[in-house]
Amino acid sequence: MTTDTLPTMTTPTVTAFDWVPDFAKGLVRDLRVRWAMEEVGQPYDVELFGAANPRPEGYVARQPFEQVPAFDDGEVQLFETGAILLYLAEQHPQLLPADKRDAWTAKCWTFAALNSVEPSISRLMSYDLFSVGKDWVKQAREPAVAMVRQKLKRVADALSERDLAGNEWLAGSFSIADILMVTVLENLRTTDLVAEQPVLVDYAARAKARPAYKRALAAQLDDFTGTPPAR
Amino acid sequence: MTTDTLPTMTTPTVTAFDWVPDFAKGLVRDLRVRWAMEEVGQPYDVELFGAANPRPEGYVARQPFEQVPAFDDGEVQLFETGAILLYLAEQHPQLLPADKRDAWTAKCWTFAALNSVEPSISRLMSYDLFSVGKDWVKQAREPAVAMVRQKLKRVADALSERDLAGNEWLAGSFSIADILMVTVLENLRTTDLVAEQPVLVDYAARAKARPAYKRALAAQLDDFTGTPPAR
Repeated sequence: MTTDTLPTMTTPTVTAFDWVPDFAKGLVRDLRVRWAMEEVGQPYDVELFGAANPRPEGYVARQPFEQVPAFDDGEVQLFETGAILLYLAEQHPQLLPADKRDAWTAKCWTFAALNSVEPSISRLMSYDLFSVGKDWVKQAREPAVAMVRQKLKRVADALSERDLAGNEWLAGSFSIADILMVTVLENLRTTDLVAEQPVLVDYAARAKARPAYKRALAAQLDDFTGTPPAR
Repeated sequence: MTTDTLPTMTTPTVTAFDWVPDFAKGLVRDLRVRWAMEEVGQPYDVELFGAANPRPEGYVARQPFEQVPAFDDGEVQLFETGAILLYLAEQHPQLLPADKRDAWTAKCWTFAALNSVEPSISRLMSYDLFSVGKDWVKQAREPAVAMVRQKLKRVADALSERDLAGNEWLAGSFSIADILMVTVLENLRTTDLVAEQPVLVDYAARAKARPAYKRALAAQLDDFTGTPPAR
């Protein structure tokens, strides 16, 4: 069986940055893993390096895209926040709804956050962050914004449906899907796009009011102790 | 436990299109699910409708983004190909490597295909398919192509590493990660970008030589029995 729970042999280590540009603070993806671990009281260690610095030797074997976070608990080495959260949910079942069907719905939304919603947001934000001022961006933004609006409406509609049934999260209870969706939506913080969907505003506020989110965010921000790269 | 295998009560149904524009034939995502089921000899039914037609009543409750595929086996209703393949792998363990660590590596690559690789490809192809000829596209393509190249290089490097160890797939054996990665790469078929990485050319050829892929592709193509939308 490949789904047996593996024993955690050591305190998990998560890689994170000790310096990022201001626009990225609170958005770096280790936040998702920190949040999940804070939800279940799982202690963890952090291995830090600067976003603009060379990676530690051998890092590409742990994270093929040389990004953060990479995860290591002595039993498995993982990359991709979706996979790391899925692994944590196998060890800490409270990160998924107890009902099997709801748990699978949560896994569907886990992928939806990362594959149906985040790409449209990343595309738009790449224009605003890395190509701002270029003459083609104004025109490129138009279809990109339309796509983000469409995706946000879909998520808002799904949440509205669930709220009618007395649920306030994407699946039956707070889950890794919500951690991913809320941190994905947060990438739009410099736009008014989430504000256009009051259901999403409330949803994100509920999630970000959780003590575990606050602890995870504080921990990420506290770890920005490095210095900017020399110019 | 949320990871128990659910019994399959009925033959699974997958939604798919009975008509798509030519550029999409062989790329629609139900192919991924068909492929996985062909690998394990799981019979399935197909529920067809036209890509340009209104969706069946109530479809949004099964697929919040009104896309295909949606999956229903009488026990669970799923959307997102990543989640569907993960579910199939729980029922048919041969869709993941037998070694637990390798199985988790495969899950990492499952997410990597969908979140680290596909978004850059989708962005580039959206320029070429939906904004072709627009004056801003030529400039927008440049950073998009660079990003795709970078991602492909990372995947090729990872595969090269594994080939040294005698492995020819992303994890220890052929898995859902390879189904996703190969179908993601296929979206570049109208470009020369994959050809720039011989490792990826070989990898995709190995995967597409599998009888299960051929059966799945033939089944998707055979189901395009509908008529184009009226203009």
